[in-house]
Amino acid sequence: MKVGIIGATGYGGLEMLRFLHNHKEVESIGLFTSSEEGTIFSDKFPHLTDLYNVPLQKIDYDALAKYDVVFASTPSGVSSSLFPPLVGLGPKLIDLSGDFRLKDLESYNYWYKKTPAPQEAVNKSVYGLTEWNEHAIRQSELIANPGCYPTAVLLSLLPLLKHKLIDPNFLIIDAKSGISGAGNKPSQTSHFSEANESFSIYKINEHQHIPEIEQAIGLFAGVDTKITFNTHLVPMTRGILATSYAHVTDGVTQQQLIDCLNETYKNHPFVRVIQDANAVGTNQVKGSNYCDIYVKLDERTKRATIIGVIDNLVKGAAGQAIQNMNVQFGYPQQTGLQLVPYFI
Amino acid sequence: MKVGIIGATGYGGLEMLRFLHNHKEVESIGLFTSSEEGTIFSDKFPHLTDLYNVPLQKIDYDALAKYDVVFASTPSGVSSSLFPPLVGLGPKLIDLSGDFRLKDLESYNYWYKKTPAPQEAVNKSVYGLTEWNEHAIRQSELIANPGCYPTAVLLSLLPLLKHKLIDPNFLIIDAKSGISGAGNKPSQTSHFSEANESFSIYKINEHQHIPEIEQAIGLFAGVDTKITFNTHLVPMTRGILATSYAHVTDGVTQQQLIDCLNETYKNHPFVRVIQDANAVGTNQVKGSNYCDIYVKLDERTKRATIIGVIDNLVKGAAGQAIQNMNVQFGYPQQTGLQLVPYFI
Amino acid sequence: MKVGIIGATGYGGLEMLRFLHNHKEVESIGLFTSSEEGTIFSDKFPHLTDLYNVPLQKIDYDALAKYDVVFASTPSGVSSSLFPPLVGLGPKLIDLSGDFRLKDLESYNYWYKKTPAPQEAVNKSVYGLTEWNEHAIRQSELIANPGCYPTAVLLSLLPLLKHKLIDPNFLIIDAKSGISGAGNKPSQTSHFSEANESFSIYKINEHQHIPEIEQAIGLFAGVDTKITFNTHLVPMTRGILATSYAHVTDGVTQQQLIDCLNETYKNHPFVRVIQDANAVGTNQVKGSNYCDIYVKLDERTKRATIIGVIDNLVKGAAGQAIQNMNVQFGYPQQTGLQLVPYFI
Amino acid sequence: MKVGIIGATGYGGLEMLRFLHNHKEVESIGLFTSSEEGTIFSDKFPHLTDLYNVPLQKIDYDALAKYDVVFASTPSGVSSSLFPPLVGLGPKLIDLSGDFRLKDLESYNYWYKKTPAPQEAVNKSVYGLTEWNEHAIRQSELIANPGCYPTAVLLSLLPLLKHKLIDPNFLIIDAKSGISGAGNKPSQTSHFSEANESFSIYKINEHQHIPEIEQAIGLFAGVDTKITFNTHLVPMTRGILATSYAHVTDGVTQQQLIDCLNETYKNHPFVRVIQDANAVGTNQVKGSNYCDIYVKLDERTKRATIIGVIDNLVKGAAGQAIQNMNVQFGYPQQTGLQLVPYFI
Repeated sequence: MKVGIIGATGYGGLEMLRFLHNHKEVESIGLFTSSEEGTIFSDKFPHLTDLYNVPLQKIDYDALAKYDVVFASTPSGVSSSLFPPLVGLGPKLIDLSGDFRLKDLESYNYWYKKTPAPQEAVNKSVYGLTEWNEHAIRQSELIANPGCYPTAVLLSLLPLLKHKLIDPNFLIIDAKSGISGAGNKPSQTSHFSEANESFSIYKINEHQHIPEIEQAIGLFAGVDTKITFNTHLVPMTRGILATSYAHVTDGVTQQQLIDCLNETYKNHPFVRVIQDANAVGTNQVKGSNYCDIYVKLDERTKRATIIGVIDNLVKGAAGQAIQNMNVQFGYPQQTGLQLVPYFI
Repeated sequence: MKVGIIGATGYGGLEMLRFLHNHKEVESIGLFTSSEEGTIFSDKFPHLTDLYNVPLQKIDYDALAKYDVVFASTPSGVSSSLFPPLVGLGPKLIDLSGDFRLKDLESYNYWYKKTPAPQEAVNKSVYGLTEWNEHAIRQSELIANPGCYPTAVLLSLLPLLKHKLIDPNFLIIDAKSGISGAGNKPSQTSHFSEANESFSIYKINEHQHIPEIEQAIGLFAGVDTKITFNTHLVPMTRGILATSYAHVTDGVTQQQLIDCLNETYKNHPFVRVIQDANAVGTNQVKGSNYCDIYVKLDERTKRATIIGVIDNLVKGAAGQAIQNMNVQFGYPQQTGLQLVPYFI
Repeated sequence: MKVGIIGATGYGGLEMLRFLHNHKEVESIGLFTSSEEGTIFSDKFPHLTDLYNVPLQKIDYDALAKYDVVFASTPSGVSSSLFPPLVGLGPKLIDLSGDFRLKDLESYNYWYKKTPAPQEAVNKSVYGLTEWNEHAIRQSELIANPGCYPTAVLLSLLPLLKHKLIDPNFLIIDAKSGISGAGNKPSQTSHFSEANESFSIYKINEHQHIPEIEQAIGLFAGVDTKITFNTHLVPMTRGILATSYAHVTDGVTQQQLIDCLNETYKNHPFVRVIQDANAVGTNQVKGSNYCDIYVKLDERTKRATIIGVIDNLVKGAAGQAIQNMNVQFGYPQQTGLQLVPYFI
Repeated sequence: MKVGIIGATGYGGLEMLRFLHNHKEVESIGLFTSSEEGTIFSDKFPHLTDLYNVPLQKIDYDALAKYDVVFASTPSGVSSSLFPPLVGLGPKLIDLSGDFRLKDLESYNYWYKKTPAPQEAVNKSVYGLTEWNEHAIRQSELIANPGCYPTAVLLSLLPLLKHKLIDPNFLIIDAKSGISGAGNKPSQTSHFSEANESFSIYKINEHQHIPEIEQAIGLFAGVDTKITFNTHLVPMTRGILATSYAHVTDGVTQQQLIDCLNETYKNHPFVRVIQDANAVGTNQVKGSNYCDIYVKLDERTKRATIIGVIDNLVKGAAGQAIQNMNVQFGYPQQTGLQLVPYFI
């Protein structure tokens, strides 16, 4: 198959290449850019020397229409106008930005401070949380790939919310991310000397992933809730660990919580329900498409601590996008994604 | 004055020397050890070459009794037996471990899994959260210096709890610490290649600082509560950031929250109430005795996010211990502690 | 084919699994240990949950004899006695330690301070610097896999020495390595709080890789030389960058140096001769089996700076070991090793 | 005394404040800027909240003339035009940039690619390598503060060159620096995700500190030499370690080398000659004004490895600048500079 990537120069795009390079169904990869037409990709990214000594191509709908699938790994506010003309032209479309995730355009405008995509295109899009939406993904031609934080949060919370084991009325979600989540554009916040050796909180109560998480909880668990969600920057490159807190429903036990998670994910190769409390850390999934989940009921307070761990660039972006492509094209979900976590 | 330090070879002890070295009231410092008698301190810690080319001394009560103040910077379970014989012999005693913090010996035994100190000595001890207990500290001869996490948590939560601006019945505290908090003894958890580039959670619902925080909330805010408290390891050396969550009392505004903090700490030189949401990070206090506090009410959920930031080795240990010494001896609190945060 | 690994619990062993997991010729992998028989591997290394939920096996010659190849990823001084009895029993043997590299047993004893392997076994062993010894490797049944530093140094220096473009009489080699090179055993040197944010030199003029480099320069370049070689610890997990300095032979130009490198490695898929001076760093090869080489003649001093860059755990250990296995069994060298550098 | 700082918003300027804050002779500090007049300093740098809540002032010669000393902590090419009009107006001038270091204006232009300062001003300037130029510094009104790399290199090499214990004809200097040396302006090179976990070489044979080092070797050791000098980026914030290599003169012993260093620096409080090979690392001097020096003769090759270690922002910039100010004003060199290395 032929794969096109728009915005290949971002970290999400680079990470897609890391996996697609060994994807046995992929014949060719086209790299598209809005601004660097003609640049040899490996000149810009020398770690790809001998691997991608190919020029970046100008974004062109006739050219893109010839691909089997087109990924947009662009900043928010780009694919909202770039993708709609491609709908129905042939290629399956997978958007890694937030532009097609929120069904409510006003909400998009409020949280993203950007012009939303056309309602019609948004209505066509399917939310690509693979483990929870496989059937719809298989049918869809436009996939809104989930955000990095929502992936870690939803995979860990949805089973317990859907089965009413935890109280949806006071959900506290404290999330932490490595700095690659901020992308590859230099800024004071991501300047080494200032980001290094410092842990900080950002976008307090204002992160655009809040409405995405609430919408998905409604969609997949049938629960209407307002979450408290905060995000922190960790002085490391990759990884997200989200720690959530909730009261358990009366009488719920640790065993019920763990059984619910095990039962939900028993047939899902990329979700691991962790038994060992000492094994809950981002190095356990680093570089891989795994999401590790852990739950612990505190008998003293009757509150549960629920943890989701992913590599923000893989299961939180490029990996899940390829997983969705595999579903769309009827390949086994693991195709091209069986890289072992590198741990150190 | 003459200062004695037991357990000077730990990070807390080293950090005390960093500040005491420029403390104008300190004439001499004696370094005591249980195991390395005679070792030249700067041979063991070459960064102190030309500064502390002195031998470690054997722990000896007659020698210790001649000091004006004796600090114990030892692991839990040591000062519980080491300090009681010194009570009343002359020196003021300041314990940096957890051995004299919990008034309930059964609780100590349950959380620390160690034999508690004698009830009599524990009763004599005063909890050294300087900003909240200055009067008692001035009178005391035995100070239980607070834990690193409790310092960040209590300084940020106590004003709001005491003035009933937040609901004490569902306090979620999500704390993060640099790895120096684990001390200087090598282990797999603190092995560079495995700790580096990984963010993890540990001691889920089981951290020994839980009863300390609950006891102090009762003591200083008059509130009986059961907290949810979790701790995470950040791949950096220094710093603690504690993010707490609570419902605000009906009608409470952001302004009331901020006014309460400002009013509480207006005369306290080491607590800074931060206005700028972009300035909440551990690099803002690194190497200094400051505690930065920030509060933000989320109108959407009526929940407040309350943040406390410290250097775990300074305000969370050595710095506060010296601050307490200053109070005991009637010096200005800032004496010897006016080092500027090094930021980068 | 069936692959056995002795010492799979070290970083070298873990890294072998990361590559062998996707090696299409490998049917099964047996994990052997001297001390943890029966331990489920993924319990010890949770990042391998669902991948290697298999028990570690006791080292047993009858069992090992049934494998097609056996790797020893053990500390120095182990395979010297472990491997000789296996020679000739069937499996190809690849040793990742230093035990079979030095042909001169006295030299081994002097630099390693350990008892050498039997002369007969050492004589049988072939030095596994793949690009320079492919023919001998194909024939051999016992391979001494090169050290991490020698791999980076030799691949960059050998072409220029062999073609007499640089003066062998004053070779200065200043090498730097990430901390994973020290292995997975905790120590004060590798304790996070002390290794983090510090750059240091170690084993000044005493590194055991010195005789290995000199022996290989004699073997492959036909030059007898005494090198100056020093090693430094970089506060990162992976990567080696070796900077070498030498006078060029009279009249030699930059073009001759670069041509020599290009010509030497034109048919070697894992060596990249870098053109761009801004692309010489360990993140360019991280996680991959590449060795990047760069050379720059300083016209002002007529001295050349020659740089070799590898991932110490891959081309410096596990990756080259698998590359050698591929050669021994007649597979394309890249089999199982085509992972893209992860860059960030 | 009154101290003025031009370019206080750079890391060098921030570091000056960290030390001047506790300098007992300093009454007031004025902060000057070319672009951010009126900005409250602690709003820009919140770690200085409660310490420097003062506005940045416009650069104005009448105002500057009222200060006892004026520091320029500006990028190259600024003080060359900014300082000359101030010469003779009253304040002592200390330039932390490279604009007044090179006596040969053509050389400055060649290496810095900038317009040099007027020859007259350059002639007036004194090179501020405190330990080697104290007398001239005391007399001078314009000091060219040394570069960070030259400080580490010169303090370690000068004694051995001056006493002809090492051969000046083949000096190889391999230097490594933390990333703060690149300043506070964001760039791709200093972007956290790309600088983190990577070790790289830069400005191969082209660093502007080369002529500065050669000029100083001529000035203080009376030797004319062409050095080979390369610089590397270490993924840490602070610290420089420079490893130099040279043949020793016939018959020279390790003891002679060490005696030479000890004798040279016996009365210099900020240079420590290190005995313990395991104590040669940047964490030994971090945050302090120390320069640690170590030398080791390799009997096998008759070459010496000579190491200099500093904190690039302190002894390599702000600390040495204050040390020079102390000399100019007749204060003890240590005044305000007695901060203990923070080690971790």
